[in-house]
Amino acid sequence: MSEFEKIEYKPRSVREILIEMKDISELMMDLAYSAALFNDYELAEEVLELESHVDTLAYQLNMSTMVATRDPEDAEALVGVLKVASSADKISDAAADIAMIVLRNIGVHPLVSEVFKKAEEGLVKATVHPNSILAGKRLSELELASKIGVDIIAIRRKKHWIINPKGRETIQKNDILIARGSHSGVDELKKLAEGTLQKLEEE
Amino acid sequence: MSEFEKIEYKPRSVREILIEMKDISELMMDLAYSAALFNDYELAEEVLELESHVDTLAYQLNMSTMVATRDPEDAEALVGVLKVASSADKISDAAADIAMIVLRNIGVHPLVSEVFKKAEEGLVKATVHPNSILAGKRLSELELASKIGVDIIAIRRKKHWIINPKGRETIQKNDILIARGSHSGVDELKKLAEGTLQKLEEE
Repeated sequence: MSEFEKIEYKPRSVREILIEMKDISELMMDLAYSAALFNDYELAEEVLELESHVDTLAYQLNMSTMVATRDPEDAEALVGVLKVASSADKISDAAADIAMIVLRNIGVHPLVSEVFKKAEEGLVKATVHPNSILAGKRLSELELASKIGVDIIAIRRKKHWIINPKGRETIQKNDILIARGSHSGVDELKKLAEGTLQKLEEE
Repeated sequence: MSEFEKIEYKPRSVREILIEMKDISELMMDLAYSAALFNDYELAEEVLELESHVDTLAYQLNMSTMVATRDPEDAEALVGVLKVASSADKISDAAADIAMIVLRNIGVHPLVSEVFKKAEEGLVKATVHPNSILAGKRLSELELASKIGVDIIAIRRKKHWIINPKGRETIQKNDILIARGSHSGVDELKKLAEGTLQKLEEE
């Protein structure tokens, strides 16, 4: 695990921090399920790092909320924001619980696999074959979300995970992709990555 | 809030309880977002009742796990199941946090609405008009999930909410439906409920 981030006030808006907390915590659940299903130790470690980052964000949100509050009216308006942040923090903890199953080598009991099945149906792990049409393409160029309803949530490149990659990220051969989407979408992505499908067939 | 359920051992399988915990906790997040977005006090109360029910299930799961364990090997195999249950319990708590925003009349701050927007896009609330083709049909007959990719997660009938309705449930006129699905799916459901669309158009 990474060292704890130092808690210090940063001039970020409440809005920005809250959106980051919400987005990361939701992503973490998918990453944690992926780590458990694919028994991926490093991905589970990423989830724990994100959990620690969400904790830091929670401190920052509290500080930004305090700074933004000028009177009791502001306080009443903003107290709900803290509740939403607390909810995101709990979801992040829930994801860390799942990641811990992998990190502690507890082993995924058949019952757990069964329970994760619903999540699994929308998740796929695929390695980019050198012949794949995905290799060398930017995510923004592929438009996977709009064309086949699939989001790439993490990319493993050599020894590192790139979590929630941005549109400017270029897929490279031998990348390992973790993606989430509809059944047909994730099936298609797997074929595209493996090179058995050479053209993006829009839905 | 309902009274607390008495904690007593029930001869239910670990599997059955774990699946129920997982399914309910995920449903609760959608119900909590719906309660906040539609500012629905009774729906928020349902979320708190479900939270208390998930707590009861956590006790029962612990007991069933203990009873099912005959030796240290069983214990090692089953300890991961408890971790998944703990994760579901935290998600249920996170949903209750959101429901509390409604119940305590905190008011949904514009920031919170913005953050919920992503969740909102897949959620719809629609009242069944007497002319709607949905009125008088069983859910199993409509096959909304396979035909338009929409799940009815709750039905408000007169003074009560029916949470996670089963296939045998018949939709009645004036029912209020809360459903989750793709953009196009929830749009279509809204039109079907309002009676402006008189035929189910499969995707």
